[in-house]
Amino acid sequence: MTDSNGASPSRRSLLGWGGAGLALGAAAAGGAVAIARTDDDAATPAAGTAIPFHGPHQAGIATPVQDRLHFAAFDVTTEDRAAFAGLLRDWTEAARRMTAGRTVGEGAYGGLAEAPPDDTGEALGLQPSRLTLTIGFGPSLFTRFDLADRRPEALVDLPKFAGDNLDKARSGGDLCIQACADDPQVAVHAIRNLARIGFGKVVIRWSQLGFGKTSSTTPEGQTPRNLFGFKDGTRNIAGTETDRLKKFVWVGEKDGPAWMAGGSYLVARRIRMHIETWDRTSLQEQEDIFGRDKGEGAPVGRAKERDEPFLKAMKPDAHVRLAHPDANRGATILRRGYSFTDGTDGLGRLDAGLFFLAYQRDVREGFIPIQRNLAADALNEYIQHVGSALFAVPPGVRDQDDWWGRTLFSEEA
Amino acid sequence: MTDSNGASPSRRSLLGWGGAGLALGAAAAGGAVAIARTDDDAATPAAGTAIPFHGPHQAGIATPVQDRLHFAAFDVTTEDRAAFAGLLRDWTEAARRMTAGRTVGEGAYGGLAEAPPDDTGEALGLQPSRLTLTIGFGPSLFTRFDLADRRPEALVDLPKFAGDNLDKARSGGDLCIQACADDPQVAVHAIRNLARIGFGKVVIRWSQLGFGKTSSTTPEGQTPRNLFGFKDGTRNIAGTETDRLKKFVWVGEKDGPAWMAGGSYLVARRIRMHIETWDRTSLQEQEDIFGRDKGEGAPVGRAKERDEPFLKAMKPDAHVRLAHPDANRGATILRRGYSFTDGTDGLGRLDAGLFFLAYQRDVREGFIPIQRNLAADALNEYIQHVGSALFAVPPGVRDQDDWWGRTLFSEEA
Repeated sequence: MTDSNGASPSRRSLLGWGGAGLALGAAAAGGAVAIARTDDDAATPAAGTAIPFHGPHQAGIATPVQDRLHFAAFDVTTEDRAAFAGLLRDWTEAARRMTAGRTVGEGAYGGLAEAPPDDTGEALGLQPSRLTLTIGFGPSLFTRFDLADRRPEALVDLPKFAGDNLDKARSGGDLCIQACADDPQVAVHAIRNLARIGFGKVVIRWSQLGFGKTSSTTPEGQTPRNLFGFKDGTRNIAGTETDRLKKFVWVGEKDGPAWMAGGSYLVARRIRMHIETWDRTSLQEQEDIFGRDKGEGAPVGRAKERDEPFLKAMKPDAHVRLAHPDANRGATILRRGYSFTDGTDGLGRLDAGLFFLAYQRDVREGFIPIQRNLAADALNEYIQHVGSALFAVPPGVRDQDDWWGRTLFSEEA
Repeated sequence: MTDSNGASPSRRSLLGWGGAGLALGAAAAGGAVAIARTDDDAATPAAGTAIPFHGPHQAGIATPVQDRLHFAAFDVTTEDRAAFAGLLRDWTEAARRMTAGRTVGEGAYGGLAEAPPDDTGEALGLQPSRLTLTIGFGPSLFTRFDLADRRPEALVDLPKFAGDNLDKARSGGDLCIQACADDPQVAVHAIRNLARIGFGKVVIRWSQLGFGKTSSTTPEGQTPRNLFGFKDGTRNIAGTETDRLKKFVWVGEKDGPAWMAGGSYLVARRIRMHIETWDRTSLQEQEDIFGRDKGEGAPVGRAKERDEPFLKAMKPDAHVRLAHPDANRGATILRRGYSFTDGTDGLGRLDAGLFFLAYQRDVREGFIPIQRNLAADALNEYIQHVGSALFAVPPGVRDQDDWWGRTLFSEEA
C-alpha cells in the first residue's frame, strides 16, 4: 500500500488487489495503479482521483469539499471491547482500500463462489471520486467499554438552542462516519460496506444523503448556493490556511485529552428549510435577512462577495451579522454542509434543507456561542433544526499499521 | 429562442434573458449564449450542455440517461380547467427556459425588490447539466376537467402483481414530472420551481430522488450497476435505435387516441431492495438469481455482457431468463431507472433500492406481461415493490408556441 503515482484507477481494474482474486486476479495485478501520497490534502485533485487516507488529520475535514455526501450515525450493539476495537481495525482497512478506489477484501467476485462476496459490487468500474471517510465518536460511546474517563471535556452534551425541534431518531449516535465523494454511488457504497462489516457490532441509527455542497474549502472556489438561493459562509476556512486550521479546527497537543491531538469536533445538524414560505418572500426581505445581495453574494453595501462585511450596515437580525466572527468574539468554524431533499412531507411540501456539518477545535468556542447568537437570526422564521449530533473526531490514521481510534483504545496513547 | 450555437451557458450569465432584468439585464444581453437545436437527441452531449426541449417526442425518454433524477407526482387541486391549462402553458415556458440553463421568469434577482423573485436561485451559476423535464398524465387526471372520454385505452389501471406491497402515499398521482440532469441541484431546482408555479393548482403527492442511473440508452455506454452490484437491462433500447423506438416506445398515429401520437407510457415503481439480506447471499447464488456473472455481466455460459443470452442455460427462475423478450413474446421496454437511498428504516437498514422507470408504446404489451412473468423471479426474495404509478406521456412540444398537453386540452387536436 505504499504505492506510487498513477491517477484514476478504476475499481474494476483494481479488483482482487492484494487478495487471491480468482476471476480477474491476473488482470488486476497487471493493470494495478495507485495513488500518489502527499501531505498536501488542500490541493484540489481531479474529480476522479483518490484522496490520501493516511496523514496527521483525517481526510474529509480540510479536504476540498466533494460534491456528494452520505453520512451515517451508528449505535454500538456489542458489549465486547475487543470486538469493537477489532471492528475499528477492520473498518480502517476497508476505508483505506475504498478511498483508494479499491474493493473491500477480495472484491465483489474475487472470493469463493460459495461465500458472499467481500464487496457489494455497485462501485465496480467507478472512479475513486475523491472519496473520504471520516469517523467520529459521540458522547454516548464513552458510557461503554470503560471509556468514561477518556471522554474529552470538549465533548459536551449540546445545550438546547432556541427554536430546536429535535427528532431523537435523527439525533445522536455512538459514532458516525462521514462519506464524501464526487459520485454519490461511491459514497453510498462506502457506508453500506462499512455497515455490513459492522453487522452484529453496530447498527445504523440514522443516515443522511446530501446532494449539493453548500460550502467550499478552496479559497478560489465558487461559494455554492444553499436552497434559499444564497451564498453563505463565504469566509470559510480553506484547506490551505494552515494557521486558521491550527487555530480553529485541529485539537492541539495541550488541549487534551492526548488521544484527541490532531483531531477535531464535528457538529451535525439537520436543518429543515421551509422553502415554500421562503419562496413567497420578497427579494428585498430575503437580502435583508441574509445581509447579502442574492446575485453576487456581496455583503450589504459592498460590491463583491468577498469584500469585508460592514456589519453595522446590516439589519440587527441579519444572518451574516449574527454569524460573523466579529459578533462572536472571533468564534470560527469550518463548514462542510450539504443540501438535502428527502421526498415530500405529508402536506405536499418538499422535505428539504441543509445538513449542516461544522468542524472546530472546541465546540464551546465554536458552534455553541455562534448558535446561541443566532437565536435572534431573522432566518429562524424559515428554518428549523430537527436533528443534532456532536462527535469527537480522532486524529488521522498515520500509516498502514495504524487504525481509526487507536489513540483512544490503545493504552500507550 | 431560435438561438444558434454556444455550449455551456451558465445560468448566471443568462440571467434576465428575455425579461426586463434590472440588476444584470445589460450584462446578460451582452453575454447571452444559447443552445444548438437538433432533432438528434440520441447523440450524447457533454455533461454541461443543454438538451433541446422542442421536438416530436419529449426529451428525457430516448435522451441518453443523465446521472441524477428528481421525480415528482402531483395531485390537482383546482377544478378550473382553464386555470389548469394555463398552468401547463406556464410550466412549458419555465421548462423551456430551465432546460436551456436559464432562470425562470426574470430570475432570482432580476425583478422588483418588493416582489418574490421569479426563480428560487439555487441553480444560478450551474450548467444546464443536460436537464430534461418530461410530463405525464395519470389515470386520475381523466376523472377531472371533462376528460373522461379522452382517456387512452392503454392508460389502464395497473393490475395487482404478485408480491406487491404498495404504499398509497408513494403511488399514483394526477400527473408527474420527471427531471433528469447530471447535477442533482439542477434537477431539484427544476421540480421545486415547477411546484412553486403550480401553487394553488397542484400539490406534490410524492417525490423521489435518484442518485445513480441503472440503465444506459447509449449503445456504447457502460451498463451501470444496480445496488445488488449487478448490471441489468443490457439490451436496453438505445436512443439511436429509431426502429426499436418506433416499435416499442413511441405511440403511433394509429394507436390512438390522436392526442397521444408521438407520446409514450411511463411506469414508475419504487422497488425496495433488501440489501442486507442480499449481501449475505453467496456469489454463486447471486449469479444464479440474475443469470449473469457479477464481474463481466455476461449471461450464464457466455463470455461478454452483450453476448446473446442462452436462456435455457439459466435456472428457470433466473431474472434475465424471465425478463427477456424471448420469454415474453417479444415484450420490450425502455428502462431509465435510478438507484435511491432514503436514509434508514426503523430497523437500522438502509431504505434503498431501485426507482424503476420504463417507457413503452403500450403498457399492456410492455410492463404488464413482463411483470406478470416475473412473479416467478428468484429475485423476489430480495425485493419488494412499494410504490407504483402509470402515466400517459404526451408528445413533444413542437415549438415556441406549443405547450405540454396542448393536444389533450385543445379541441383541434
